[in-house]
Amino acid sequence: MNKLLLVLVAIPFFGSAQVNDSIFIKKTSDDIMGNGKAYENLRVLTKQIGGRLAGSPQMSKAESWGAAALEAAGADTVFMQPCTVPNWNRGGQDKASIVKMGDKKEKRTLDILALGNSMGTGKKGITAEVLALASYAELEQRFEEVKGRIVFFNYGFNPTSIQPSRSYGDAGIYRRSGASRAAKYGAVGVLTRSLTEATDNNPHTGAMVYNDSFPKIPAAALGLKDADFLWSACKRNPSVTVSFTTNGSFLPDAIGNNVIAELKGTMYPNEFITIGGHLDSWDVNEGAHDDGAGIVQTIEVLRALKAINYKPQRTLRFVLFANEENGGRGGQKYAEEAEAKKEKHVFALESDAGGFTPRGFGFTMSNEKLQKVKGWGGLFLPYGVYDLRQGGGGADIGPLNQKLGTPLAGLSPDGQRYFDVHHARNDVFENVNKRELHLGAVNMAALVYLVDKYGL
Amino acid sequence: MNKLLLVLVAIPFFGSAQVNDSIFIKKTSDDIMGNGKAYENLRVLTKQIGGRLAGSPQMSKAESWGAAALEAAGADTVFMQPCTVPNWNRGGQDKASIVKMGDKKEKRTLDILALGNSMGTGKKGITAEVLALASYAELEQRFEEVKGRIVFFNYGFNPTSIQPSRSYGDAGIYRRSGASRAAKYGAVGVLTRSLTEATDNNPHTGAMVYNDSFPKIPAAALGLKDADFLWSACKRNPSVTVSFTTNGSFLPDAIGNNVIAELKGTMYPNEFITIGGHLDSWDVNEGAHDDGAGIVQTIEVLRALKAINYKPQRTLRFVLFANEENGGRGGQKYAEEAEAKKEKHVFALESDAGGFTPRGFGFTMSNEKLQKVKGWGGLFLPYGVYDLRQGGGGADIGPLNQKLGTPLAGLSPDGQRYFDVHHARNDVFENVNKRELHLGAVNMAALVYLVDKYGL
Repeated sequence: MNKLLLVLVAIPFFGSAQVNDSIFIKKTSDDIMGNGKAYENLRVLTKQIGGRLAGSPQMSKAESWGAAALEAAGADTVFMQPCTVPNWNRGGQDKASIVKMGDKKEKRTLDILALGNSMGTGKKGITAEVLALASYAELEQRFEEVKGRIVFFNYGFNPTSIQPSRSYGDAGIYRRSGASRAAKYGAVGVLTRSLTEATDNNPHTGAMVYNDSFPKIPAAALGLKDADFLWSACKRNPSVTVSFTTNGSFLPDAIGNNVIAELKGTMYPNEFITIGGHLDSWDVNEGAHDDGAGIVQTIEVLRALKAINYKPQRTLRFVLFANEENGGRGGQKYAEEAEAKKEKHVFALESDAGGFTPRGFGFTMSNEKLQKVKGWGGLFLPYGVYDLRQGGGGADIGPLNQKLGTPLAGLSPDGQRYFDVHHARNDVFENVNKRELHLGAVNMAALVYLVDKYGL
Repeated sequence: MNKLLLVLVAIPFFGSAQVNDSIFIKKTSDDIMGNGKAYENLRVLTKQIGGRLAGSPQMSKAESWGAAALEAAGADTVFMQPCTVPNWNRGGQDKASIVKMGDKKEKRTLDILALGNSMGTGKKGITAEVLALASYAELEQRFEEVKGRIVFFNYGFNPTSIQPSRSYGDAGIYRRSGASRAAKYGAVGVLTRSLTEATDNNPHTGAMVYNDSFPKIPAAALGLKDADFLWSACKRNPSVTVSFTTNGSFLPDAIGNNVIAELKGTMYPNEFITIGGHLDSWDVNEGAHDDGAGIVQTIEVLRALKAINYKPQRTLRFVLFANEENGGRGGQKYAEEAEAKKEKHVFALESDAGGFTPRGFGFTMSNEKLQKVKGWGGLFLPYGVYDLRQGGGGADIGPLNQKLGTPLAGLSPDGQRYFDVHHARNDVFENVNKRELHLGAVNMAALVYLVDKYGL
C-alpha cells in the first residue's frame, strides 16, 4: 500500500494523531525496505562469523562485530555487559549406524547430532539394542525393558496443528528430558526424533537438561527419514542394534557479553525500552534465522529510527543477548543488573522466532495494556501484522518480566517454515528472504515508536 | 488452534451454524495437513514432467497426469475440453555478452532469457550499441537516439511497496510492450530488467506482446546483477556494445486441453462452482509455484472433500486450465463453452499466486456479496486467512466474470518471495514448502464449502 493510499484509507477511521503516526511509520518502512542494512548485516554475521555457541571464539568475534554494527547504526553509546556463560563443546563429529538387525550384520549410517549440553559417549561409542518408544506413556509401561538399551523416542510433530510452535512445545519434552527419563530405568543412551516436520533428513540439535538424580547418558537427535527407518526396522525385527559416538563435554564457564546500545531518551531518559535478540547460536549452522534475524532486525530498528532522525522520549536499549540457546544466561544477567540498579523498564520487545514474514506480535502484559496496543492495530495492517494477542515475549526478555513486571512483546513471524531449519545445518543465510526480514524490522520499529510515544 | 479450543472460543461469537462450520473446516484441515497429497503430487508434476509450455510434449503429458490425478482424488467424472493454444518455442539457448566498452574490446557474459512470444535474432544474433533508459518517459525524450540500437529498459521494482504484486504491475509494462515501444523509433532489439527483487542473477521470462504496427524485434530479460552492471557500464562509457542471440518462434497453434473434473451437486447439479489453476508453465523451470501449486491445491480440495465424504449441493468443477502464461486461451475457452451451453456459474476460485502461506482472498463481486463472505471471516482466522478484500480472482477465471458475471475469488498467499522465483529457473519443487502449500488448500476448501452451503 503506498503512502497516499494509506492516508486516504486511514482518514475515515483514524484521528489526526493516527494519521501522523501512519505517515511516520510509512517513512520508517520506506527507509527500511528501500535502504535497510539488516540483510547485508546478516550476510556478514552468518558468512564471516558463522555458528557462535556461547563460550566459542566465534561468539567473541560476534560480540565485536555486534558492537561495531550498533555504532555504525548510530547508537549514542555502546557497551558490553559481561556475564558468565556455559561452555559446552560438541568435541567432534557425531556418528551413528545400525550395526545389526536381528541376527544379521548391517551397516547403515544414521545422521545424528548430539543434543546440546549432552555428555559424549567416549571415543569407543555406545553399542546396544534399541528400544523404540512412541511416548513417555509407553516408557512407563515398558520400563522393565529399558536397562542396558538405547532408548529411541520417536514422538513427532502433530501435522494438523496450524501453529508448528505448538507442536514444538508438545514434542520438545523428549529432547529436553528424554535422556534422564530413560536413564532412570537404566538406559545407556537416548536417540530422539528431531523436532521438525522437514521433508529432508537433517537432524536438529537443541538444549537438553540432565536430572542430577540419574546417570548422565549420551543423547542425540535423528533426522526424520532415519527416524522413520529406525522405527520401522525396530517394528520389523526382533532386535536392532545401533552404535553411536558423540563427544560433548562442558569446559569451565566462560565470560560472554550482552552487547548493549542506547538511544538516549529526550524526556524520560531513565525509562527504558529494550529491543533485542540473542547473538549466540548453535554450532552446526550459521544461526541465520535463530537468531541472526533477530539480531540484525534489532540493529535495523536503531539504524532506521536514527536515519529518520527520531528523538525517542524514553531511552531505547538495543540488546544483543549473550546466551540463550543452552543457558539463558544473557537475559538473566540483563534483568539482574536492571533490578540491582533499580532501572525502570517500561517495555521489552524480542525477535527470536525466525526472519520470516511478520504476522503479529504476542504480548505478556495486562489486558488493559493489550487493549491500548490493539487500538493501534490499524497502523500495522498495511505491513502485514494483524494478529495482536496475549501470550508471547522471548526467552531473553522473560526475566525482565519475572523480576520487574516489565510488559513484553515478541514478534510473531509466519511459523510454517521455521522448524525446517531450526537448530539444523540448513539454518543458513540462503534460507532467509530479504523482504521478509526487513518487513519484520518495519513492524518492530513501528511498535517501539508507538510505545515510546504513547506509553503503555 | 486445536478443535476443542476452536469450538470453545467460537461459541461465544458464532451461532450454532458457524460452530458446525468450524468443526467441518477443522476436519477438512486435519485431513489436508495430516494426509494431504498436494505436495507429493507437486513432486511428480515438477520432477517427472517439469516445465510445460502450451503446445509442448510436456504439456500433453501433464494433461494425462492431471486427468489421472483428478480420478485418483475421487472425481465423479473427468473430461478434456480441447482448445487451440499458442505454440511458442524458445528454440535454443539464449546468449548475450558485452563485446565492447567505448573503444575497448570486452567479453563479459550476460545471463538472459528471451521473453515469451518474442521472435529470435536469427543465428548470427544482433550486435549493436546499447541505449540504457530508465523509463518510457526517458524513451520519449531520447527517441532520436534509438535508431539502430539495442534499447535496455532498466525500470525496477519499487522496494518500498509492501505488496510486490504492485511493483510487478507497475514495472510489467516494460516486459509486455517494451519491444514495440522501442521498435517504433527504430531499435533493433530490447533488453529488460527482470521483474524481480531477487538477490541472485536469474533472469525472469514472461509474456510479451508485439504491436503489429512496428517491426517485431527480439527481446530478452536480464538478471538483476547483470542489469545493474550493464546500467553502470552504460553510464561510465561513451558507448557499450552488446551482442545477443535468441531463437524464439511460433509454430502453428496446437490443440491443448482444459482438464476438468466434477463432483456432482446433490441439490443444484446445474449450478457450477469452479476451482482451478493453470497447468501450463514456462519452459525454463518446473513451474512449481507458477502454477503447479494452484494445480495440486485444486486437486487437493477435491481429494479432501471426497475423503471426508462431503456431498456438495452444487456441482463442483475442478479445472486445470490449458494455457495462461502466453495466451490465456484455456480460461477463454472455458468461459465460451459455459456461455454457449448457458451454464449457470455461481462462483469461481483460482490459486495462481504461488504456493506460499495463505493470508487472504481477493474478490471480484458486489460489495453485498463480499459482506456476506466477510461474515464468515472468523472461520478462516485459525488457518491464517484474515484479509478478505475487494479485487482479485485469476487470469483463467476472469473470462467467466466478463462473459457471465460470475463472482470470483483468488487465493492471496504471502507475496514477499513470489518474484524471487516467478518465471525464473529457480521456480522448482525445492522452493515450495509442504505446510504452506497444504494450508492454502485448507482455506480454499473452506471457502468452497461455505459458498456451496450458503450461496452468494
